Amino acid sequence: MKDKVTFYHAGCPVCVDAQNAVEAIVDRDRFDLEIVHLGESSERLPEAEAAGLKSVPAMLTGGQMVHLNFGADVAALKG
Amino acid sequence: MKDKVTFYHAGCPVCVDAQNAVEAIVDRDRFDLEIVHLGESSERLPEAEAAGLKSVPAMLTGGQMVHLNFGADVAALKG
Repeated sequence: MKDKVTFYHAGCPVCVDAQNAVEAIVDRDRFDLEIVHLGESSERLPEAEAAGLKSVPAMLTGGQMVHLNFGADVAALKG
Repeated sequence: MKDKVTFYHAGCPVCVDAQNAVEAIVDRDRFDLEIVHLGESSERLPEAEAAGLKSVPAMLTGGQMVHLNFGADVAALKG
């Protein structure tokens, strides 16, 4: 079974740049890459925050949340 | 010829966590991964700053500098 990389974003320009970088480098033979748009899939917010999400874009892998540059605070994603 | 991912760090705990994540996910069949410790290799600082480095840890790929979390400002690396 493959390990997983989850990329969280909100469609912002900073997010798109980071997404392009992550999509480019991830080894798809060893990792499934899931892209989650938290603006459209707000039901995923609790899971993301529980895993350490503070801002987008960010990626979660091996239980570790890695924030990539800074697009938006997670608070801005809450309606 | 492979593309390149350059990971810049300064040995800080935040850097080590990010390095582990990057080392885990990068597709080595398509990318050469270079790890640069800017505390030990300060001669690489000008190149890194020219490519957009503001803080460590960060990775450069496809001409794009992606800052990962926040360990230290680049100013702190200048003796």
